[in-house]
Amino acid sequence: MTLRLHNFFRSSTSTRVRAALNLKGLPYDYVAYVLRNDETRTPEYLARNPQGLVPTLELEDGTSLTQSLAIIEWLDEVHPEPPLLPKDAIGRARVRALAGMIACEIHPLNNLRVLFRLRDQFGADEDAQKDWFTHWVTLSFDALEAGLCSTSATGRYCHGDTPTLADLCLYAQVWNNRRFDIPLDPWPTIARIFAELDRLSAFRDAAPSNQPDAA
Amino acid sequence: MTLRLHNFFRSSTSTRVRAALNLKGLPYDYVAYVLRNDETRTPEYLARNPQGLVPTLELEDGTSLTQSLAIIEWLDEVHPEPPLLPKDAIGRARVRALAGMIACEIHPLNNLRVLFRLRDQFGADEDAQKDWFTHWVTLSFDALEAGLCSTSATGRYCHGDTPTLADLCLYAQVWNNRRFDIPLDPWPTIARIFAELDRLSAFRDAAPSNQPDAA
Repeated sequence: MTLRLHNFFRSSTSTRVRAALNLKGLPYDYVAYVLRNDETRTPEYLARNPQGLVPTLELEDGTSLTQSLAIIEWLDEVHPEPPLLPKDAIGRARVRALAGMIACEIHPLNNLRVLFRLRDQFGADEDAQKDWFTHWVTLSFDALEAGLCSTSATGRYCHGDTPTLADLCLYAQVWNNRRFDIPLDPWPTIARIFAELDRLSAFRDAAPSNQPDAA
Repeated sequence: MTLRLHNFFRSSTSTRVRAALNLKGLPYDYVAYVLRNDETRTPEYLARNPQGLVPTLELEDGTSLTQSLAIIEWLDEVHPEPPLLPKDAIGRARVRALAGMIACEIHPLNNLRVLFRLRDQFGADEDAQKDWFTHWVTLSFDALEAGLCSTSATGRYCHGDTPTLADLCLYAQVWNNRRFDIPLDPWPTIARIFAELDRLSAFRDAAPSNQPDAA
């Protein structure tokens, strides 16, 4: 028995958890779902994850953990090395806030079910969806760039010189931005950190294009 | 010197933090901002919080903490009694996931700046905004109800018999729902827990209608 990750290659919340598992050196079974085919709306899946969302991390005893940030905090508590949060409380608050700027302010507005809803309720075509997506990325990436470039707490990565929860979110979001070809030029610190992360096999191996279900 | 909470009475992320401060028994100065007047877009405020969002918790030494969940985790680490997360890792993961179902799946889609964007980009009137708001509440409250009523881990509150991070999010979201008069009838467990929380002065005193800037 091993960990099983129920996920989808392009899901950015899934990317976060894959990179966290890789950083922790934890092997896992990859279970792929096609979101467009409602494969996460079956009674079996909904029993694991009542929201019908990915990812779900299934533990060895069958327990299902949901919500990517909650899963990553659990991983960090149960498998503390290498740590994904700094040791000091202020540093931890900073990292969680940087993560929240992406996880609570960009991703929820831009995932597939939201774009579908914009199409269905407002007739938003691909161009309108791109305007919407780009608007939320720009608002929060402008603020994230300001928060990163204004302090020496930022190092090689978002906080110091080892990857944290904030980097997991940043890396996955930059991949997500590629759906609408959003260039990183306006945000040089974010671009630099993404490039640093992309050199690490734990992140690279978690990237959407490197998953077994990538078309 | 004391803690200063930069916030807005109706903001549900502010409500979460106010209730957390009350539960911890921590006094704080209440600094009110009118979001519609762009009072959180001044250079002074943006230096504290590059996103121009509420809440910001200003510590005694001037440090600013942002993002409500990060603030609450910090409060729980630095002022551990009474705890806002259970002691066991699986319980903590459950509480953080329940919180995430609201904080990452409902609130980001329904806050004021999103409703303004729907109006500006798609001409969404009050009825269309209500349809949008209700759609996301319904999707996640259906799942939250399923996650709460299916296990004995739920007690008087979302997890056991003491309030946790999940209850802070639930309480604030139910208040937020009142903006569009969404009744709780479809979700009896959520309604029961809200009523229990509303009996606690820590929560009641944090409610939007009881703040100094409530009209």
